[in-house]
Amino acid sequence: MRAATVTGFGEPLAVGPTVLPRPDRYQALVRLIASGVCHTDVHAADGDWPVQPAPPFIPGHEGVGEVVALGPGEHPVKVGDIVGNAWLWSACGTCEFCRTGRETMCESAEYGGYTVDGSFGEYMLVDTRYAPVIPEGADPVEVAPILCAGVTVYKGLKNTEVRPGQWVVISGVGGLGHVAVQYATAMGMRVIALDVRQEALHLAQSLGAEAVVDASEEGLDVGERVREITGGGAHGVLVTAVHRSAFGQAIDMARRGGTIVFNGLPPGEFPAPIFDIVFKQLSIRGSLVGTRQDMEEALDFYARGLVKPRVSTCELEDINDVFRRLVDGKVDGRVAISYR
Amino acid sequence: MRAATVTGFGEPLAVGPTVLPRPDRYQALVRLIASGVCHTDVHAADGDWPVQPAPPFIPGHEGVGEVVALGPGEHPVKVGDIVGNAWLWSACGTCEFCRTGRETMCESAEYGGYTVDGSFGEYMLVDTRYAPVIPEGADPVEVAPILCAGVTVYKGLKNTEVRPGQWVVISGVGGLGHVAVQYATAMGMRVIALDVRQEALHLAQSLGAEAVVDASEEGLDVGERVREITGGGAHGVLVTAVHRSAFGQAIDMARRGGTIVFNGLPPGEFPAPIFDIVFKQLSIRGSLVGTRQDMEEALDFYARGLVKPRVSTCELEDINDVFRRLVDGKVDGRVAISYR
Amino acid sequence: MRAATVTGFGEPLAVGPTVLPRPDRYQALVRLIASGVCHTDVHAADGDWPVQPAPPFIPGHEGVGEVVALGPGEHPVKVGDIVGNAWLWSACGTCEFCRTGRETMCESAEYGGYTVDGSFGEYMLVDTRYAPVIPEGADPVEVAPILCAGVTVYKGLKNTEVRPGQWVVISGVGGLGHVAVQYATAMGMRVIALDVRQEALHLAQSLGAEAVVDASEEGLDVGERVREITGGGAHGVLVTAVHRSAFGQAIDMARRGGTIVFNGLPPGEFPAPIFDIVFKQLSIRGSLVGTRQDMEEALDFYARGLVKPRVSTCELEDINDVFRRLVDGKVDGRVAISYR
Amino acid sequence: MRAATVTGFGEPLAVGPTVLPRPDRYQALVRLIASGVCHTDVHAADGDWPVQPAPPFIPGHEGVGEVVALGPGEHPVKVGDIVGNAWLWSACGTCEFCRTGRETMCESAEYGGYTVDGSFGEYMLVDTRYAPVIPEGADPVEVAPILCAGVTVYKGLKNTEVRPGQWVVISGVGGLGHVAVQYATAMGMRVIALDVRQEALHLAQSLGAEAVVDASEEGLDVGERVREITGGGAHGVLVTAVHRSAFGQAIDMARRGGTIVFNGLPPGEFPAPIFDIVFKQLSIRGSLVGTRQDMEEALDFYARGLVKPRVSTCELEDINDVFRRLVDGKVDGRVAISYR
Repeated sequence: MRAATVTGFGEPLAVGPTVLPRPDRYQALVRLIASGVCHTDVHAADGDWPVQPAPPFIPGHEGVGEVVALGPGEHPVKVGDIVGNAWLWSACGTCEFCRTGRETMCESAEYGGYTVDGSFGEYMLVDTRYAPVIPEGADPVEVAPILCAGVTVYKGLKNTEVRPGQWVVISGVGGLGHVAVQYATAMGMRVIALDVRQEALHLAQSLGAEAVVDASEEGLDVGERVREITGGGAHGVLVTAVHRSAFGQAIDMARRGGTIVFNGLPPGEFPAPIFDIVFKQLSIRGSLVGTRQDMEEALDFYARGLVKPRVSTCELEDINDVFRRLVDGKVDGRVAISYR
Repeated sequence: MRAATVTGFGEPLAVGPTVLPRPDRYQALVRLIASGVCHTDVHAADGDWPVQPAPPFIPGHEGVGEVVALGPGEHPVKVGDIVGNAWLWSACGTCEFCRTGRETMCESAEYGGYTVDGSFGEYMLVDTRYAPVIPEGADPVEVAPILCAGVTVYKGLKNTEVRPGQWVVISGVGGLGHVAVQYATAMGMRVIALDVRQEALHLAQSLGAEAVVDASEEGLDVGERVREITGGGAHGVLVTAVHRSAFGQAIDMARRGGTIVFNGLPPGEFPAPIFDIVFKQLSIRGSLVGTRQDMEEALDFYARGLVKPRVSTCELEDINDVFRRLVDGKVDGRVAISYR
Repeated sequence: MRAATVTGFGEPLAVGPTVLPRPDRYQALVRLIASGVCHTDVHAADGDWPVQPAPPFIPGHEGVGEVVALGPGEHPVKVGDIVGNAWLWSACGTCEFCRTGRETMCESAEYGGYTVDGSFGEYMLVDTRYAPVIPEGADPVEVAPILCAGVTVYKGLKNTEVRPGQWVVISGVGGLGHVAVQYATAMGMRVIALDVRQEALHLAQSLGAEAVVDASEEGLDVGERVREITGGGAHGVLVTAVHRSAFGQAIDMARRGGTIVFNGLPPGEFPAPIFDIVFKQLSIRGSLVGTRQDMEEALDFYARGLVKPRVSTCELEDINDVFRRLVDGKVDGRVAISYR
Repeated sequence: MRAATVTGFGEPLAVGPTVLPRPDRYQALVRLIASGVCHTDVHAADGDWPVQPAPPFIPGHEGVGEVVALGPGEHPVKVGDIVGNAWLWSACGTCEFCRTGRETMCESAEYGGYTVDGSFGEYMLVDTRYAPVIPEGADPVEVAPILCAGVTVYKGLKNTEVRPGQWVVISGVGGLGHVAVQYATAMGMRVIALDVRQEALHLAQSLGAEAVVDASEEGLDVGERVREITGGGAHGVLVTAVHRSAFGQAIDMARRGGTIVFNGLPPGEFPAPIFDIVFKQLSIRGSLVGTRQDMEEALDFYARGLVKPRVSTCELEDINDVFRRLVDGKVDGRVAISYR
């Protein structure tokens, strides 16, 4: 099989032949049809997060493919089924977090394309107890980003605790944000999209945003604008792109008692104004991907036609080029490798 | 009547005669028996918060006294009843926050000893729809700190969402913290007290803390110690004293999925490590005093003998001296003015 | 002014002249434009509920009109504003329920058209602290049913705790149910409508129901059909019309862990199968109208065009005839008196 | 090995030799030290529940013993560990209920002593992924009832949503109820115990109940008495023994907005007054045993000395006699078989 392998942090991925893996107990071998490319894959290849993967390894955690072989044990899927891999590749099933429906917190979890090989190759292994089953009729390329970007923002939106009819700000309308606008709309929320790029704001409007705010507008007090639109501030803020001023801006936009959810994993520290957090009685929450249940729900919204990621395709050979464009912020929507 | 008045920010309070106020509709005139002194009173007198009061004014929002006259309108109390004033002196009753049991967020709220005159005098006015009724048999001096310190930490503990049998860290065992240890214990939580002073830790243990951590211990990794005691981290952290390293420390101590509540109002910005917040999927929450319902519940815990603030008394004339000791961190437990 | 007055239980309402009331403190005099007619008005006139009103009185709690005079005190509205009356005409503002955003439980509440005179007349009084403000541009006749039917089902749906993307069964597509289908759809729920009338089911489909079940179909196991459609049962069931078999049927339709909400007030006892409730770990919940906050939210859904009650109009003089049609189940949608 | 086997519904259990089972994958063979006897075992032997077990089978789901052998696969326990069996013997781990921390709703769950052989024998099998680990130092006889009675009432109390400082009524102070009084007290609730037996009420008081109500007292209005004690009704009611009048009584005792939890599995239908449920806006909830997480928490309360079941012991040979006493209501506290 051919795959794109990280051989050392910061080096270009090596695209070439590698050994076909064999499925162990509870595992399936999957022939890939498509795989989304996520900014996390760049972090994996660069090794710039506090917890590092161990090269050589194959990144990728938005893979969609066909089960071609099953390891020992009982399986909830069979050969021929279309399944995916996910960032939460598996969890222990017995710890306090797994026992309480919070498997994304499992300290023994395996991460796809990070602690186990991922979907940047012609074949991959999945744990059939954790691998998402792709809804019938789904377009493999289009559905791929749901497996990470989709479930991440869907869970993030749930974590805002915004109810139908209340306001949410989607801060950043990129790979995650443009999907978030659609989920929020389908969940009955009133959406304000915030970005610095005109075309992103146009996209957001076409996807259901009721209002847009151009943060690049000179002299604009973003918080004030949001408070005007919403009559007092947004009930929730989903921050898909964390920059230095994110805390202060999110707090300005939030209604008293509101919830701000951080959906990204930026290294470094950010200045938090505690007086305002306490005085406005806000909640700040970190949200990381989603559980199997979140995934099934996120896929169901897609299957019902309520969410449609914008995806452009590339070949496996293009992966280093795609990484570069991601780093440069030059990717619109999402890119997926097509293996067909 | 005699009172202690702020005549200008940063100046000593002027203790002397002032005009007796008359109760307007829904107001009662109260002859004070005792009044707690809170660090917030120092902020009021210094005018160092973003929103300032307007001198001249009388601080104090932990007053306990007897109703001696009632203004027009119907009242839930009568002459002779013992009532208190509170930081949340009144609210509008009709905004979205008042309508949903979150009156501490009301944008038209009045604050006792801040936007209206408070309890540092022989008499004060209260809004009888909002003034707490003091439980029968309560010691006026002892109960005074419940009106701010007590309800603040009680609500803060509720906001941690720690359930009976789970672990909470009380960070800082001072005027607020030593009351928090008692509430948490009465609420069935398992308590770890954290402070840098040996005597504070001894006090915490005598009040129900199951474990104590001396943050001044050389070479001690506070987070690791808490994770050892709790088997993975505390489910909740109540931060009563916010210092520069509070965020990092609280995050290190918290269990995955845990909640950190900030109970104080420090000016300035604090460095927040967003990667860790997201990776551990934590919630950070600001909590400010409490509603009338929180107050009644907080008082009920006191009335049932489950919480007993440590209070030393002073005269009204001592107020500037007490302020100095508060700023210097030289107050054990709480100080209350006795008017008897 | 002319009004329809209950002079004795079970007797026809007397339509004729009566004395114009004067607004007391916090009250406004309102000239009516329209008033919905609710089945509760029939119960009021018949005096067949455990707690009875005291004739003579004027029923009606879905009134919409213009403020023409204000009593003493401060008011959140002014002369000329369009406001409504509601079943929850006022509440005490200080009890534990009012303090916690649950004013529908207030034991001192007044009920419009029941304990105080209502909207079946040319003028009525409202308590301006509790009277709903009608959104600008609303059609007075069309919006009237939102004031009781709308807020009742909206709060009922909230009480099912069904999240966007989950299934809810609306049992009964009459005056309440046809509005419930629209709210549920706007809240992102997947709706199954259940009724015995073909035209009601057609209506439900046109209003957003994804599936309909004709409970009159011979040999049909309603529970099984719902379990098939939903893959295991509905997450929530809203029972707008309670009949003898309601409990068993609702339990059969519910998913394990689901919630069944009763939205009506039938006298008498109904057989409950506790084994099934425990084994399926269901919640059964009673839901009664809504708070001011629920009302504002319910009106906002209407104002945004997401909910549109079907209303036919009548004259005040027709009231006894409308009552008869309500009792006979011959009213489609809702009837409203037009005062123009 | 010797065991007590159900050979036919309604027949006495046959106590005699049977074949030692072999542990399959994820299973352990456990040599029993003690096993509680639960009323459910009687239902199993009588086959009087809607879903029946298939004789011959060995009842018992409160077993405590030592792991003596392990089947294939990885195990969270090792030979020599002390573990238990439980009513929730295993679950699928992948359905929507298992994925969301609600494994007690799993439709593929196995039940100890019902669908798989239980603890009424010298040896039993457990699924090590689901078997509770007994805390170090626990008395095997005393801890046994925690495995069903304890976790059942603990989860039931959680389901009442009663917060520390609020009132709960424990209706029925028998095998379940006397443990419930202790859990509720440890969880910071204020407890009223209700029973018809003086000695049960004395026991309840000694275990922490703040008030007791003798339902056998002539002319007593139980609901009124509870409303007097609590100032408006109990926030929660835990019904451990469901009789014909349970619904009406529980509703009378409940505060508006309160929650009533049914903890038992009586066959038949019970009359429910829907008007009162709706008017008081109550929640009625069925609660069935608990998850692994509930179990670990329930055991932790025991390990910390906060809960201590009253247990008398018997021999395996006495089982039919114990069943008779259970049916006759002649068992105080709980009976456990001792295998030593």
